[in-house]
Amino acid sequence: MAQDPTPTLELRLTIEQVSSFLDEAFPPSARASLGEVESLALNHLRMRLDPNESMRRPGDIVSGPALMALVDVAAYAVIAAHHGPEAMAVTNSLSISFLRACRFEAIFAEARILKLGRRLATIDVRIWQRTEDRLIAQSTVGYALP
Amino acid sequence: MAQDPTPTLELRLTIEQVSSFLDEAFPPSARASLGEVESLALNHLRMRLDPNESMRRPGDIVSGPALMALVDVAAYAVIAAHHGPEAMAVTNSLSISFLRACRFEAIFAEARILKLGRRLATIDVRIWQRTEDRLIAQSTVGYALP
Amino acid sequence: MAQDPTPTLELRLTIEQVSSFLDEAFPPSARASLGEVESLALNHLRMRLDPNESMRRPGDIVSGPALMALVDVAAYAVIAAHHGPEAMAVTNSLSISFLRACRFEAIFAEARILKLGRRLATIDVRIWQRTEDRLIAQSTVGYALP
Amino acid sequence: MAQDPTPTLELRLTIEQVSSFLDEAFPPSARASLGEVESLALNHLRMRLDPNESMRRPGDIVSGPALMALVDVAAYAVIAAHHGPEAMAVTNSLSISFLRACRFEAIFAEARILKLGRRLATIDVRIWQRTEDRLIAQSTVGYALP
Repeated sequence: MAQDPTPTLELRLTIEQVSSFLDEAFPPSARASLGEVESLALNHLRMRLDPNESMRRPGDIVSGPALMALVDVAAYAVIAAHHGPEAMAVTNSLSISFLRACRFEAIFAEARILKLGRRLATIDVRIWQRTEDRLIAQSTVGYALP
Repeated sequence: MAQDPTPTLELRLTIEQVSSFLDEAFPPSARASLGEVESLALNHLRMRLDPNESMRRPGDIVSGPALMALVDVAAYAVIAAHHGPEAMAVTNSLSISFLRACRFEAIFAEARILKLGRRLATIDVRIWQRTEDRLIAQSTVGYALP
Repeated sequence: MAQDPTPTLELRLTIEQVSSFLDEAFPPSARASLGEVESLALNHLRMRLDPNESMRRPGDIVSGPALMALVDVAAYAVIAAHHGPEAMAVTNSLSISFLRACRFEAIFAEARILKLGRRLATIDVRIWQRTEDRLIAQSTVGYALP
Repeated sequence: MAQDPTPTLELRLTIEQVSSFLDEAFPPSARASLGEVESLALNHLRMRLDPNESMRRPGDIVSGPALMALVDVAAYAVIAAHHGPEAMAVTNSLSISFLRACRFEAIFAEARILKLGRRLATIDVRIWQRTEDRLIAQSTVGYALP
């Protein structure tokens, strides 16, 4: 039960700035597997990932680690959008429930901040396909802020 | 990535039936610490807990285990409401993030089903005080269905 | 990936001091449900809990929340033993897997520190009955240090 | 609290068979990032991963998702070794605590089965560098068995 005073949540970056921030934070060989920021609003960032062949598993499903990487980058992006890009957050913990097989087609991740404290941010990320009701996975991610 | 076909979610119990089910499922000495069902709708159950002295910790906060017990019963209740009371679900896993200190006053828990499969149910439970925006904790609970 | 320098792990309290610390930290009505410290060594604290009636569930099993409370106190105790009692740690996150039904008989919890950083401690707690091989639950707990 | 009867744990594959199983289970483009099985004994499988450039992050650390992929494959491999390769297990849940920054050098993962039930397997995976005492991450993974 962290007792940090909670800063007021406000957007500090535009969608273009978040995208540039991700392009700089990841090496090009990794960046391509992490999807694109599709929309950004107060406490809501959506990413879209079109899976590539290295993510394909038997039965034409997308691998769990590909989804965990998407969760991680979506959480990172929503923190950057609301905390600013100057400082590097590092993943502290991640818990994910896989709910349905992920088809080999467009994947969407919705990231929302549960708490942005001074030292820790906690993010809810939900992955879906086709409609938001058809959840593929839910994850809660803790990021340590510097 | 469970591949269970997902049953259509529908309410199978009334709020009175869920309350009776909880009264029978827990011994009276435990039941009193678990709060009351305050509202029930499709895929949404709210419980309210007024903390008792055994839950008080230094600084007039409510203990973490009291909140975990509330999470667990709220998840159990929302499953019973949508799955029916005949069979006993057992907690399989629980992951919780404590976001703010819980004051010694009324506590609310919102339980929503992320996936109700044939063998596993995954539930999102959020605990708040005063306003729904002031989250105290978020938890994801897996229940095994018999 | 927290980058705290890791303090060298050393015992700072005796088993009697840890027990007194717990007696003071919890109200008497809660303390009785939390078990006793049975042994303490460098990076290893064992608690024993004899369940009481309020923990009993149908089928003569011990409730999940009783086990979560035991996990939480064992983690708290092992931190106090190695960090000292002056400061109050607060639970930040807890993840637990329930592996087998817990019989209504003596329960043991083994707590070991995975990392004691400046700001966060991460603890592994395992619950067993009869023999250490028969695990009832495994939990990983994060505590924020003040 | 799953009530599955627990099968007796015994090795059903050799280290060479586990390695072949992984080579067949993953596409070549993914397999190279997942490390090699270095040792196998009853309830203990060790993998080694030498990180590649796509895993490098600022500060010469290895990315969290690369570690999560290693955790996932180590859990999968230890299940195959003890359950047999005929059936495909799918990740059901994964919870990971990142304890220290992972240097850009050899990474080791130790996977041990906490419970191999009929329907669910729960695996403890620990990642370390240089010495087993210097833990980089701890993860608990649930796999659904078909």
